[in-house]
Amino acid sequence: MTIPSPDTSYHMTPAEFRRLGREVVDWIADYYERVESLPVLAQVEPGEIRGMLPAQPPQTGEAWADILADLDRVVLPGVTHWQSPNFFAFFPANASFPAILGELVSAGLGVQGMLWITSPACTELETHVLDWMADMLDLPAKFRSTASGGGVIQDTASSAVLAAMLAARERATAYASNARGADGSLVAYTSTQAHSSVEKAAKIAGIGSDNVRLIAVDEAFAMRPDVLARQIAADRAAGLTPFFVSATIGTTSSNALDPVPAIGRLCREQGLWLHVDAAMSGTAALCPEFRYTHAGLEDADSYAFNPHKWMFTNFDCDCFYVADRAALIQALSILPEYLRNQATQSGAVFDYRDWHVQLGRRFRALKLWFVIRHYGVEGLRFHVRRHVALAQAFKGWVEADDRFELAAPAPLNLVCFRYRGGNAANETLLQRLNQSGDLYLTHTKLDGKYTLRLCIGQTHTEERHVAGAWRRIQEEADGL
Amino acid sequence: MTIPSPDTSYHMTPAEFRRLGREVVDWIADYYERVESLPVLAQVEPGEIRGMLPAQPPQTGEAWADILADLDRVVLPGVTHWQSPNFFAFFPANASFPAILGELVSAGLGVQGMLWITSPACTELETHVLDWMADMLDLPAKFRSTASGGGVIQDTASSAVLAAMLAARERATAYASNARGADGSLVAYTSTQAHSSVEKAAKIAGIGSDNVRLIAVDEAFAMRPDVLARQIAADRAAGLTPFFVSATIGTTSSNALDPVPAIGRLCREQGLWLHVDAAMSGTAALCPEFRYTHAGLEDADSYAFNPHKWMFTNFDCDCFYVADRAALIQALSILPEYLRNQATQSGAVFDYRDWHVQLGRRFRALKLWFVIRHYGVEGLRFHVRRHVALAQAFKGWVEADDRFELAAPAPLNLVCFRYRGGNAANETLLQRLNQSGDLYLTHTKLDGKYTLRLCIGQTHTEERHVAGAWRRIQEEADGL
Repeated sequence: MTIPSPDTSYHMTPAEFRRLGREVVDWIADYYERVESLPVLAQVEPGEIRGMLPAQPPQTGEAWADILADLDRVVLPGVTHWQSPNFFAFFPANASFPAILGELVSAGLGVQGMLWITSPACTELETHVLDWMADMLDLPAKFRSTASGGGVIQDTASSAVLAAMLAARERATAYASNARGADGSLVAYTSTQAHSSVEKAAKIAGIGSDNVRLIAVDEAFAMRPDVLARQIAADRAAGLTPFFVSATIGTTSSNALDPVPAIGRLCREQGLWLHVDAAMSGTAALCPEFRYTHAGLEDADSYAFNPHKWMFTNFDCDCFYVADRAALIQALSILPEYLRNQATQSGAVFDYRDWHVQLGRRFRALKLWFVIRHYGVEGLRFHVRRHVALAQAFKGWVEADDRFELAAPAPLNLVCFRYRGGNAANETLLQRLNQSGDLYLTHTKLDGKYTLRLCIGQTHTEERHVAGAWRRIQEEADGL
Repeated sequence: MTIPSPDTSYHMTPAEFRRLGREVVDWIADYYERVESLPVLAQVEPGEIRGMLPAQPPQTGEAWADILADLDRVVLPGVTHWQSPNFFAFFPANASFPAILGELVSAGLGVQGMLWITSPACTELETHVLDWMADMLDLPAKFRSTASGGGVIQDTASSAVLAAMLAARERATAYASNARGADGSLVAYTSTQAHSSVEKAAKIAGIGSDNVRLIAVDEAFAMRPDVLARQIAADRAAGLTPFFVSATIGTTSSNALDPVPAIGRLCREQGLWLHVDAAMSGTAALCPEFRYTHAGLEDADSYAFNPHKWMFTNFDCDCFYVADRAALIQALSILPEYLRNQATQSGAVFDYRDWHVQLGRRFRALKLWFVIRHYGVEGLRFHVRRHVALAQAFKGWVEADDRFELAAPAPLNLVCFRYRGGNAANETLLQRLNQSGDLYLTHTKLDGKYTLRLCIGQTHTEERHVAGAWRRIQEEADGL
């Protein structure tokens, strides 16, 4: 077999990368300068984007002028602009230029952080920056790596709640996960308003989504600890094994704040693992005045929040903390020969592959490090306060218009409201607003009623965008 | 509550991003130009990188000159250089400039692809490029989106095997995953040489890693279908429920090729789900002369390979294919109100959140699209052939030196070999080579014997690097 040579064939040279890299950087800067002029929700039909692509892959390499031109021709028409200041849908996934630079460096270095030895900086920077974050949110000391716990970057809050549930299952079954499946009697608890990822995790873990009890909520859509206590007692009486509770700080539907202190006391008394999901709203704890939302975390076993939602850090970046890292590692560690190495055997290092489902992992701490260093705690607080103040202003406008009503308390940056005209009218209103391309809102149902959600957290959303959104909502309401 | 203004405070401006983006692009180009001069394996002790970081996060923003300077001061000493042409350890995670540009665009757009509606281009480009890849590898038609199957990008092969196992469990238990856990009698099968992710998936899924049967291998470390058949029969006789087999095309330890045709026939007869893991070696199927490694895929239910290993596409990018997408979606779909939308209800679109654990997902198809368009099928084949030829040359050198022996057949780009001097000598040899910083190799155990692995797949590895590695191995052997 002869060796084809030389290696330079077909590769892009560093000089070409310098030139094209600048072009792409400029394309991105241009994008942010014009994103406000683009329809927020993509206006294409199913299949339209595929229809613009050749049926067959190219046999020979194409010119970069053509490839980059297709970003405008093919990709942008099919993009829903999460980085538009007029994006108020779902939750924010707010990027920032410092985070983009971090992602670029990470891609450039192309390291694997599965073991400490495979790039010590990837592991140690992550551990350190997550300890910084614990300081910044004023989390209990037990969640720090310097105590019995520590933080790890997961891709999403869905993966975080799965990891928490697996560690809880491990503890509840006396560390017997190698043996025949989960104890068939395990029961998990969360509220009717919790994110679907709790049920999904139970399904994945073989616990069964039917064995997740959805606990009733109060008039503010927060979990009722009295109902939780009664349900746990009933399950115990039925011979089942309660093992896990997921409480939410800021539910997806309406930003409800579960009463973590009361739930935590109950979990401690009953020996249940308490996971606290603060996916979006965790960021609020940067500001001392919003830390009341995080009361009761002392009794939590795990906690997750997503800088990729509301802290200017590109997806994916979920910060997942455990109080007892040994339980998590026990649930997820398998050490084959080809991964053995002295650093691991010494016990002096973290091998983050044992903290989540995946083996390989990229250098995600870089972007979080860049964001924290660029903004400083002060800059981050400034923008969180700004978003909350904008949402509170919007809430005031809704309250002042008789045609509308608030649908939930809106303590932070998400306002749930509805037009006083029934479900169909609200559905039409939403559809017309989104089809206009001027803004993007989504909906939920609260007390069975169709409800509009306006979530403020995009990096560049200013007062004029929120005021513009309200004006458009009023206009469309006029036409109903 | 007054609204802090204006929004421009603290943010990096587009103009600053243009300037700093260029600096980072140049830093990356410089990195690739000098990476060969850096010690491949990071030469730091545990805690050394953390020791260079401030204990507290910055209260106010820092200057970018300081942030970027820390890439050289803090980060690089702690990096094990996966992008060095002298990296021969584990498996490659080979990046390329086109892929880095794709990752940069993805970070810039910052879209979420959880639902079709949340960015139609993110979903449709992914579906389309994965159909291209199916063409490029000549996969059976059933794995295409235009048939009953389709491809999705998962982060890793670990997540892919978990998804496959969950779909298999769903099918085996008659789509009852909502109910009480997994059927307690389920049994999965893989070879003693398979990746640890199969056991990990069984642990996660509540099946229990003890219920994974590790099937004996032949002298080439490939799974023995006769032993598999006997074990399935024994398990059935014991009242258990065989449901899942994971076969490997190119095992992690030694690149062994399981006999997929025979295993597939057995799975079809027995009604078991067959997953085929070709994480690294799948790329070889780009070349017609290596497609023999993929014989038998007609009987597979799912297949995974990682462009992020050996196809110049930055981590993470695992291409996961299923023949029956309905089974996968059934296992992983939960649709809460706040995610409902017309496109989803119409059934005309894919919502990729139902194809994996995570809800959020980034626009990973961009980098794969860029790589395929930059290299073309021809350019990709050129480099795969080059790597295989280099590995075969190295294999010849080992065979020609009496002090060494081959430890496994080495059909493609991974050569397992050992010094004829016992385990301790090989361990010392490996340690000295890695500590020199000149190259990075890892080890495994085959037939209980300590074995060195040299894997060739880094983007810029040329003949001189492989020849240099062999010279250094011979030199250190001289000193034993």
